Formats: sequence, structure tokens, C-alpha cells
Amino acid sequence: MNLSSKFLSNAVDEISKLPGIGKSTALRLALHLVNKKKGDIDQLIKSIKELKENIIFCDKCKSLSDEKLCNICSNLNRDSKIICVVEDIRDVMAIENTGQFKGLYHVLGGKISPVDGIGPNQLNINSLLERVINDEVTEVIFALSATMEGDTTNYYIYRKIKKDKIKFSTIARGVSIGDNLEYTDEITLGRSIIQRIPFEQSSI
Amino acid sequence: MNLSSKFLSNAVDEISKLPGIGKSTALRLALHLVNKKKGDIDQLIKSIKELKENIIFCDKCKSLSDEKLCNICSNLNRDSKIICVVEDIRDVMAIENTGQFKGLYHVLGGKISPVDGIGPNQLNINSLLERVINDEVTEVIFALSATMEGDTTNYYIYRKIKKDKIKFSTIARGVSIGDNLEYTDEITLGRSIIQRIPFEQSSI
Repeated sequence: MNLSSKFLSNAVDEISKLPGIGKSTALRLALHLVNKKKGDIDQLIKSIKELKENIIFCDKCKSLSDEKLCNICSNLNRDSKIICVVEDIRDVMAIENTGQFKGLYHVLGGKISPVDGIGPNQLNINSLLERVINDEVTEVIFALSATMEGDTTNYYIYRKIKKDKIKFSTIARGVSIGDNLEYTDEITLGRSIIQRIPFEQSSI
Repeated sequence: MNLSSKFLSNAVDEISKLPGIGKSTALRLALHLVNKKKGDIDQLIKSIKELKENIIFCDKCKSLSDEKLCNICSNLNRDSKIICVVEDIRDVMAIENTGQFKGLYHVLGGKISPVDGIGPNQLNINSLLERVINDEVTEVIFALSATMEGDTTNYYIYRKIKKDKIKFSTIARGVSIGDNLEYTDEITLGRSIIQRIPFEQSSI
């Protein structure tokens, strides 16, 4: 892109390094920043700096946190014997927003994916094993995405920590509430028939 | 959004103030920044700071510039007697990228739009009048978008600076090169018939 200003060109280059932002969007954002008050830009810069400098991973669940223990792990009202295994912090937020889960989480930081060079050692799996033993966990819920990598990761962890006293479950897959059957993909619809639930439980 | 960290939440709030970026995208960007090296983030912050602190408007064309005169206005090989009137700096770049225009530009900074509370005084129109007089301009080319606001602005400026010696033109509207007629909207196609050009000139 042929930009009239070196400063503009630098800013566009840096902004377009962000994921999902191309040169045109970066230019639009840069021009927006030029027209903003200096105070607003200082706020933006300060928030990014503070984020990078202060945020840490929770000692227990490996989610992002301001303290050594995140506010979920340090909440005594939650059931520390139930652990929900997720890929990243966005999944924690998604489940928290439902208000339906009162146990703790464990953030793996990804899925086992040989194609991308991600093996079990790159993920927070050993710390999960330790938690299962130390906290006398009774149930592990897998909430990874329903892909081959997700299933592989579930199975790897299951094999590693399988014990008689621990219950394993995965979140239910099925037709979304409000969706028409005709627009649901075959695999999801097929699974939702195989894993049908008693009608008496269906409205809970 | 229920975020586990105050710092993350602040950063998401600030990032989502940018145009076209919602909370989900802001969260994705913030999490990306968390995983980036500190050096990369410092680079991003530095480029934004420098952009805001150093960039100025060109004295002549009101485009963004590093110097008092932008590199187009200060280029002696360009014809200062022809001025192309555009809305913003992105239009300057778009026309520059064609390599077809060797005159100078004038950036209005918007269009007259009473609905949005933008009148002639909010735009760089007076400075255009001064240029037309001082630089003995011979042609003014309107390259605003073909909307009601664009046409109103064109007409306002035309009325203000109309003189016998000055030629006024607007950029041609018509069917895009490579486009099928059947997919072209009726107004554009209609205009392209009314404003048809001699065949001998059509391949230039």
C-alpha cells in the first residue's frame, strides 16, 4: 500500500500483524486513532501495557488471572471435586456465562494435534493429573470441541487418569435449542438420536 | 462479558472502542497480545504513539503527512493547476494506486450531511477556495462518492468557486471493467448509456 506518511505506514504494518486484521482494516483503525483524542489513545495503550505486564496464569486451572489463584479456583462455594477440561479461557467464559456449572475448570491451552506439532507435553496435562490426585476429584467433564483433535485429547487424558473412583463425561452434543432439524448436519442429528434422553428429563 | 481478570477486562473494553470491533473480536485480540512477546507489543505501542504524536495535516491539501507539505504537494513534477477533490485520505491512496493522475488533491474530510450535523464549515472547503485563487487552478475534478451527500457537496463547491476560466469535471461512473452487464445495478448501467463515449476513445 502506497501511504503518504512513514508513521502511518509503520502503524498500519504493526496493526495488521494482529490476527484477522488485513491492511485495509489496519488503515481504517490507524486513521481512526489519528482522529481520536490523545487521552483516549493513552487509555488504550495503558490497558494493553498493563494487560501484558500484570496478567498471569492461575496456579491451579492455568486460566488467565490477576492473582496466583483465579477467582473461580479461589471461590470456596464451588465444588473442587468436579473439573471441567477446556481448551482455552474463552471456553471458561462461555460455560461461566451459562451459570450451569459450579465445579472448577482446567485449561489445557490447546488440543493434541500432531499436524500442528502440538503433543501432550505442550499442553497443561500433567498439572491436571496432579490436581486429580491431590484434590480427590470425583468427576472429569470433557468440554473440548467435537473434532478429531478434541476426541484424541479426551481419550489421551482418559487413558492417563482412568481410575475406578473417577467418573468421566463429555458435554452433550445435539440439535441446538431453537434449530430446525432440516438445517442440522447429519452427524450431529445422528448422535442426538443415538444419545436420546428420557422424555421426563428433557425439560430440565 | 464475564472476564476472570480486571486487566483483561480493561483491555477488551478499550480495544472494543475501535470501529468495527466487537467484544468477541476484542477478546480474541487481547488474548493474542497476552501470548505475544513483550518486544512485539512494545513495537505496536510505539507505532501508535508515534503516529499520534508526529502525524500532521498537509498545509495545502489537508491530507495526512509527516511534513508541513505532503510528498504529493511538494512534488514539483505534479501539475498544481489541477485539483482532485476527495473525501478522505483513503481516496487519495486509491487514486494514487491507479497511477493515472498527476495533479494535486484536496481532502475535504467528509461530505456535507445535514443528517449527521456536518455543514460546509466542518469541511476543508474554504482552504480549497483559497488554493483555487492563489494557484490559478484550471481544473477541479470531483471524486466524491456518488451519493446524495456527495452530489450536494459537489454542487455546493461548484457554486462557490464557479468561474469562467475553471473547468469542472467528475470522475466517470459506469460499468466496472470485467463486470457482466446483468449484475450491474440499473442506475449505474443507465448512466453509462447516457454518458457513452466515442468508440475511438474507449480503449484508452
